[in-house]
Amino acid sequence: LEILKPVDLVGDEVKWLDTRFVPWEEIWRKTKDYRRLAQAIKDMEIRGAPAIGVAAAFGMALAALHYPGNDLEGLMEELRKAKEVLSKTRPTAVNLFWALDRVMKKAEEVAKEKGSADEVRNAVVEEAKAIQREDIEMNMKMGKIGAKLIESGDTILTHCNTGSLATAGYGTALGVIRAAWEEGKEIKVIATETRPVDQGARLTVWELKRDGIPVKLISDTMVGYAMSSGLVDKVFLGADRILLSGHFANKIGTYQIAILAKHHNVPFYTVAPTSTIDPKTTLDQLIIEQRNPDEVRTCPYPYQKVYVTVPDVEVLNPAFDVTPPELVTAIVTEKGIAYPPYWVSLRKMLGLD
Amino acid sequence: LEILKPVDLVGDEVKWLDTRFVPWEEIWRKTKDYRRLAQAIKDMEIRGAPAIGVAAAFGMALAALHYPGNDLEGLMEELRKAKEVLSKTRPTAVNLFWALDRVMKKAEEVAKEKGSADEVRNAVVEEAKAIQREDIEMNMKMGKIGAKLIESGDTILTHCNTGSLATAGYGTALGVIRAAWEEGKEIKVIATETRPVDQGARLTVWELKRDGIPVKLISDTMVGYAMSSGLVDKVFLGADRILLSGHFANKIGTYQIAILAKHHNVPFYTVAPTSTIDPKTTLDQLIIEQRNPDEVRTCPYPYQKVYVTVPDVEVLNPAFDVTPPELVTAIVTEKGIAYPPYWVSLRKMLGLD
Repeated sequence: LEILKPVDLVGDEVKWLDTRFVPWEEIWRKTKDYRRLAQAIKDMEIRGAPAIGVAAAFGMALAALHYPGNDLEGLMEELRKAKEVLSKTRPTAVNLFWALDRVMKKAEEVAKEKGSADEVRNAVVEEAKAIQREDIEMNMKMGKIGAKLIESGDTILTHCNTGSLATAGYGTALGVIRAAWEEGKEIKVIATETRPVDQGARLTVWELKRDGIPVKLISDTMVGYAMSSGLVDKVFLGADRILLSGHFANKIGTYQIAILAKHHNVPFYTVAPTSTIDPKTTLDQLIIEQRNPDEVRTCPYPYQKVYVTVPDVEVLNPAFDVTPPELVTAIVTEKGIAYPPYWVSLRKMLGLD
Repeated sequence: LEILKPVDLVGDEVKWLDTRFVPWEEIWRKTKDYRRLAQAIKDMEIRGAPAIGVAAAFGMALAALHYPGNDLEGLMEELRKAKEVLSKTRPTAVNLFWALDRVMKKAEEVAKEKGSADEVRNAVVEEAKAIQREDIEMNMKMGKIGAKLIESGDTILTHCNTGSLATAGYGTALGVIRAAWEEGKEIKVIATETRPVDQGARLTVWELKRDGIPVKLISDTMVGYAMSSGLVDKVFLGADRILLSGHFANKIGTYQIAILAKHHNVPFYTVAPTSTIDPKTTLDQLIIEQRNPDEVRTCPYPYQKVYVTVPDVEVLNPAFDVTPPELVTAIVTEKGIAYPPYWVSLRKMLGLD
């Protein structure tokens, strides 16, 4: 499989896929201006935490590459300005700040060692490329580890999008599916629509069809039917945040899929890098805020608002739900597979105690 | 509450709500021509089994009222012709044939007793009105019976549309909710969107807002979250067909709501007239056929096809799912409430053995 990179540095330009139009149109955009790239992050042309991190790092690379002078101090000032602009795009995206800090730190190190402007330029570009490369490599490693859980002939149900379009490339749960496919295992995928924002119908279906991996789409109402009909062998999906207790937060609908899997004795796996494990937060600190009600009242469509209900009806629109550890068969990370009891295996994986 | 009648005979005209445009527009249509009414059934302007039955009966009334002559034989010939045309509109709708046969039989009885053309005319109109009235009365009776299960302060989750727009008026599960509201109980409703055809988002929300009953819409992914957050006290929904074993077929998504209710100890009730109980069919005879895949690939919108995914993706689109009796707290009918074991209580209710 050719790895789709939703954001990439090509020569002295950044190009990216405008995911707002997927799957209706495949629009690739490009720019030499970090301000334009910042706008793309802000407007959600680029989305998914790791993808945003990579985009921000490449924004710093653009600032470095196109700074017209050759004076070190002017270049460093330009980088600080770019970091400021890029950091204001998505204030809640942890990956964004992490990537910006990492690139800036590298630039400062090289500058301190009395490097030239060109040496700082190169260092910034290489650091940004490293962030992208490392994310993809980690996903491929997780994929190989998780693929051991998949047998030829399996049909795998997945939820939301955990693929190339949510990461620097390859994906987490979708990376496991890709790895199994690349190993020659004959697998099929059932993708849930994932209302209200339809990441499954829009992004996962598009990615899998692009790779030639067999996929069927179902409405979110059909998970129980599919499982009771014997159509699902395993569930693989992602995690936004994993607590040391093994509770994990993920796209709304994950929790009920876990209950349905348990009811039908279908193994239920979540796939996420160890950076997703949050050793500081406890279950009672996870506040589920409500998102924009219009997401529930409309169906996603890039050209107009298409209401599916009375426009002023009240709605619930929780940002995510929480799945308890007793419903999770195993957690796949780049460091291996964690099994219950998670309060032991996850601590061990992080090297705590 | 004023009862909304989706199809009605007013003077010598039939008027009906074109449900294809609900909730975007409230378009009432009317005609004196039974052929136009037949077209409305065929094109699904009118839908829901009891509503179709009433519409067909009113079609016979139109044929009788507007037959220009006063000769008995000519009128009977016109009625036979109308029955033929109306019966070809929705060949799988059992209620349609039942209603047409009932009206025709009445006409023949009166004709046999050497009634005049006018006496046959009146008999046909009265029989059609009786079919409508009896369905509404039965729904109101079921509503009163079921409302005993609801306490003031309850929040009730419902799925699909079981209201006025699916019946002659008032509704089955929504009839129970209406009855509780009319008794002054302070209740709230959570309506599921009900993908793929969105009967919950479109019709149930519209009906409840019209009546002033508090309603919140959720995506089908949010049922587990709502239950685990303590937001749901009871589930009330309908049934397309109930077997003597207590298994019942209903809108896709019903089965998984039942599993989620069981998991969270939320009482789960189905509401349907005893005519829905099918003593002849067994579980292995229930074949779940697949419906038009474009329902899953698009979101409902009356003016154009709005795809939410890659247009040629394969889909599953089961016509219904089957909920086993061990997940059902009780079944509400116009003859009372059946409790487990259903293979005893349902037989007793039908007067079998």
